Amino acid sequence: MNVKINEHERVDDLHRNGYKLIQDPKNFCFGADAVLLSAFCSVQKSENVIDLGTGTGIIPILLAAKTNARHITGIDICEESVEMAQRSVLLNDLQEKITISHIDIKNVKNEYPAGSFNVVTSNPPYMEPEGGLKNDFSNKAAARHEILVTLAEVLDAAKWLLRFGGRLYMIHRPHRIVDIMCLMRERGIEPKRLRFVHPFKEKPPAMLLIEATSGGKAMARVESPLIMYEKQNVYTEEVFNMYYK
Amino acid sequence: MNVKINEHERVDDLHRNGYKLIQDPKNFCFGADAVLLSAFCSVQKSENVIDLGTGTGIIPILLAAKTNARHITGIDICEESVEMAQRSVLLNDLQEKITISHIDIKNVKNEYPAGSFNVVTSNPPYMEPEGGLKNDFSNKAAARHEILVTLAEVLDAAKWLLRFGGRLYMIHRPHRIVDIMCLMRERGIEPKRLRFVHPFKEKPPAMLLIEATSGGKAMARVESPLIMYEKQNVYTEEVFNMYYK
Repeated sequence: MNVKINEHERVDDLHRNGYKLIQDPKNFCFGADAVLLSAFCSVQKSENVIDLGTGTGIIPILLAAKTNARHITGIDICEESVEMAQRSVLLNDLQEKITISHIDIKNVKNEYPAGSFNVVTSNPPYMEPEGGLKNDFSNKAAARHEILVTLAEVLDAAKWLLRFGGRLYMIHRPHRIVDIMCLMRERGIEPKRLRFVHPFKEKPPAMLLIEATSGGKAMARVESPLIMYEKQNVYTEEVFNMYYK
Repeated sequence: MNVKINEHERVDDLHRNGYKLIQDPKNFCFGADAVLLSAFCSVQKSENVIDLGTGTGIIPILLAAKTNARHITGIDICEESVEMAQRSVLLNDLQEKITISHIDIKNVKNEYPAGSFNVVTSNPPYMEPEGGLKNDFSNKAAARHEILVTLAEVLDAAKWLLRFGGRLYMIHRPHRIVDIMCLMRERGIEPKRLRFVHPFKEKPPAMLLIEATSGGKAMARVESPLIMYEKQNVYTEEVFNMYYK
């Protein structure tokens, strides 16, 4: 497939099935969070998935490589990202497996029937909007701050999209844990599995992985800590395998 | 002070200021949770503390040893425990510092004015009541299961007792994390500091320590994992120091 790569873009090897990803270094490039989230997801053969705020399309492409998902949809509000992610899908010949659509998370009720998906994934903006950022509408700011969408709105969308018993996988920041737990439960998406990600074993966690079930009963499992680095610049075996195996 | 020790009771050395504790092995004996919780608390010189469901009085006595608290109150619904804890207070000559009262957590509104305390501590029953336990009214069952008091009722009591800005310190089980976060926030007691306690470093946590502030703003700090054992039967240095230093 002959896919156009623009001058300012780069093509990264994902070390999975030979898959590649187009990214624009001037905008947001994917980080460890996308790799961690896709490794945390478990998707069965017959299940379909939707990724909310898909950006470069990294999560749909990694899930296509790592799981047997029937179909994966990625949506994003940013037209440029959607166009670039669509080219990455073509580059990997994944157009039968992955659909990338230009849809605002806040508008999913008008785009999909309720309960259309088995699995929702999201790596939403982590930070509450701050004074100084209110007028920054760059892709990078929107990916990091709740400018275009709030956590509550992401969860409203997830609740609509998930069938009863369907699962939401999300990565977020530990300092928002109370917001996350309460906003999920308020919507009937019950957190069932939590895993904290620590840069080093004796350090506080920097990220939090959550699996939640629509209509699930109260009772969560907190898993063993996920440690990123053995020492400076050396991944632990677990994280190395997420990237390269 | 000549204090009566009953035949079935034992006296344990707390390795703190020479303090001792009377316990009845047929009933509930204190465990690591009391030691972990008292080490997690920070109490300033001018502050007063109330321990909800104090049992043997272990937490008030450890806090008297480890902090400069102005005064510590312990309350319990079980008359036998209160009488035994009062004898432990006398045995350590702490009657000026510690008061143990026979009060039901559900009845604190009639016993203390609102906002009477700077700090509330509690090591409440962890488990939701189960079918088979509903008719078990032993002290042991009541200390472990929500038979006589629920988490929501403990938090209602804490909210009443704490002055604005006052702190609640609690130890609980990780599988209840969503209940804990949501029930605290509903009452305006905002979780501010969480620490998971893991038996070994690569294992899931077995306990969760929480500091929450009455009237606090949303934003929690999740701390580094607290590891109990270096290897089988060998405490980590951190936990060894909680017990013996």
